[in-house]
Amino acid sequence: MINQEMMRLGNHRSVIRDIFEYGNQRAKIVGRENIFDFSLGNPNVPAPAKVAQVIEKIAKMDPVAVHGYTSAQGSEACRRAMADDLNRRFGTNYRPENFYMTCGAAASLMITLRALVASASDEVIVFAPYFPEYKMWIESCAGAKCVVIPAQIEDFQIDFAALEYSLNADTKALIINSPNNPCGVIYSEKTIARLSALLEKKSAQYGHPIYLISDEPYREIVFGGEKINFIAPAYRNTVVCYSFSKSLSMPGERIGYILVPDCIENAADVYAAVCGAGRSLGYVCAPSMFQMVAAECVGTTSDISVYETNRRLLLDGLHSFGYTCVSPGGAFYLFPRSLEADAGAFCEKAKKYDLLLVPGDGFGTPGHFRISYCVKTETIERALPLFKKLAEDYGIR
Amino acid sequence: MINQEMMRLGNHRSVIRDIFEYGNQRAKIVGRENIFDFSLGNPNVPAPAKVAQVIEKIAKMDPVAVHGYTSAQGSEACRRAMADDLNRRFGTNYRPENFYMTCGAAASLMITLRALVASASDEVIVFAPYFPEYKMWIESCAGAKCVVIPAQIEDFQIDFAALEYSLNADTKALIINSPNNPCGVIYSEKTIARLSALLEKKSAQYGHPIYLISDEPYREIVFGGEKINFIAPAYRNTVVCYSFSKSLSMPGERIGYILVPDCIENAADVYAAVCGAGRSLGYVCAPSMFQMVAAECVGTTSDISVYETNRRLLLDGLHSFGYTCVSPGGAFYLFPRSLEADAGAFCEKAKKYDLLLVPGDGFGTPGHFRISYCVKTETIERALPLFKKLAEDYGIR
Repeated sequence: MINQEMMRLGNHRSVIRDIFEYGNQRAKIVGRENIFDFSLGNPNVPAPAKVAQVIEKIAKMDPVAVHGYTSAQGSEACRRAMADDLNRRFGTNYRPENFYMTCGAAASLMITLRALVASASDEVIVFAPYFPEYKMWIESCAGAKCVVIPAQIEDFQIDFAALEYSLNADTKALIINSPNNPCGVIYSEKTIARLSALLEKKSAQYGHPIYLISDEPYREIVFGGEKINFIAPAYRNTVVCYSFSKSLSMPGERIGYILVPDCIENAADVYAAVCGAGRSLGYVCAPSMFQMVAAECVGTTSDISVYETNRRLLLDGLHSFGYTCVSPGGAFYLFPRSLEADAGAFCEKAKKYDLLLVPGDGFGTPGHFRISYCVKTETIERALPLFKKLAEDYGIR
Repeated sequence: MINQEMMRLGNHRSVIRDIFEYGNQRAKIVGRENIFDFSLGNPNVPAPAKVAQVIEKIAKMDPVAVHGYTSAQGSEACRRAMADDLNRRFGTNYRPENFYMTCGAAASLMITLRALVASASDEVIVFAPYFPEYKMWIESCAGAKCVVIPAQIEDFQIDFAALEYSLNADTKALIINSPNNPCGVIYSEKTIARLSALLEKKSAQYGHPIYLISDEPYREIVFGGEKINFIAPAYRNTVVCYSFSKSLSMPGERIGYILVPDCIENAADVYAAVCGAGRSLGYVCAPSMFQMVAAECVGTTSDISVYETNRRLLLDGLHSFGYTCVSPGGAFYLFPRSLEADAGAFCEKAKKYDLLLVPGDGFGTPGHFRISYCVKTETIERALPLFKKLAEDYGIR
């Protein structure tokens, strides 16, 4: 009698959440410090000190102004700060009117999908490995068809043959996520250029724009001299979905934005549809105090050098133990191949050493597992001998 | 090519927003102090001092704990504080597991509607006068049919003859809002008892529960000895949607909850569907810092005596000038009859005196207008002679 699909979604605990709960139970037996939980993407690096300073300052201001409604799309001051930041760093010419402030990454994507998807025959393409909720949002809320392009596992760039085969007149949009969750890989300039050229060609061929939804919560978390990969200028029909969850280590605060550049085809209509979708989903007015925090802190990040240290340690260790793993340029995830074809069975075996890992199947990429390394460096140092033992159990080295 | 319905929703500015923008333009000509803007429901009374104190305290705590993800349904500590508050005040026995923390009132309603509505033939009943977005959320996002019960204009209680006529086997839920926006009226105990009895009878007759969605953002804002009207104990299939927007004067912070009591039929399924709908709509994890603020400040309210003063002044004035207006027990709205049948024309005439009022048509109740009196008392004192002149223009007194 009630909505069975929603009930199923609510009852079906995610694999990641299952592993996390298992870890909590195990911790009661062996002690929290002996659980090596690499399952969750909750940043362990604190927010920059500026966040607390700004919050204390705001707490002393007029509460009616601070905690009141802003306009539905966010305060003009906040949207101007977002535009100024991108313009300064990337030489763009965005205006406050191009931005719609949201309650975080999920809200940004939901609103954008709902604004763009017009019929049940519309298709939205995602690239494996992908964040599992993409598929659910596309199908269950936006009501479109989710088309998955299989992973190009040697480097996790785009398999263009597969993409070209899947593009058709019903393709409404593609979602990309670079740096990527779960593999950490950043799309190369070559990949982006090739993607842009292909989408331009196909948009012309089908007589309507194919939108690129660029989900960029990890944009600022890049290592080893990688350039920050801001994709919008490379393809004119790009809608950017951003969140401050990872860059400012405040995933619980639900603050982000949608950027609809003027160069998008029918930009005014797309922006209006974004406003309408926000209204329709009950999302108007992102949290007002954190709009102010974001406006003051945009352009700064948490100390990401911890992630870089963790990445180096893990990659060097795993490679030396015989694991195969692409060296990614960003985010805080590694996505090595599992040591048997069944990644679920592999992750079960890893539990023997209290290593909590997530099988790649839920990310659309079997035969791999995800390591979230947003943990203490000491945890990684103590976990490495266990990864070695696990490899030895498989007769490697 | 993009979603035309979302575009229309985004482009179609609400009447209230139109009036507000008109006021901004007029203010440039005649001065802000000479505009009597009664259009918006943005609380003018500041948040209690405790809110700022708690925020300053939290700003000094571990940022990883403060700003990290909570569980999808909200932190256990916050949900426990919600349960304890209601149990203390209303003698109930709620547990943390009955609560789902949300991004405010709109999110609470959207999630609840999406959890309960199972098919396009489902009907959701609202009572005029009603908050205009109800209809849009029911139709555009939950995908059900919105059935409006006309207002019983002599007292704005429920027209039970009309309700009984509209109830049928497709009725999935009713939304009530007491104290009410836009009329301020509180449902009497008699109304609630009669509603409960009718819904019990009809649920039995149709062989499935008819859920009562009680939208309670104004619950604590009651005057003149009115009892706080907590409806859930009166009808067992009640889902409560709450928001701290008005009680703590922080509408911009988007924090509220859904309460699914154990006594609801299929309570576990309904709670699961609420969790699933939150996931499907991208709403998991309400803003984490304001979960902590809500947990510490629940049970306190802003100084609502200002609203009570404003209400008394306005009611006495309007009645003495010949207006007809129900004396409401709560919220911060009055909903008098317009002095001509066309409330839009009446509100246009009021602009001559820079009185900005909202016609009742958008609330499903023509022939009336809304006054939001969450403004400075001085504004009301200065506006009263203008309401008198307006009545005189219509030849009254």
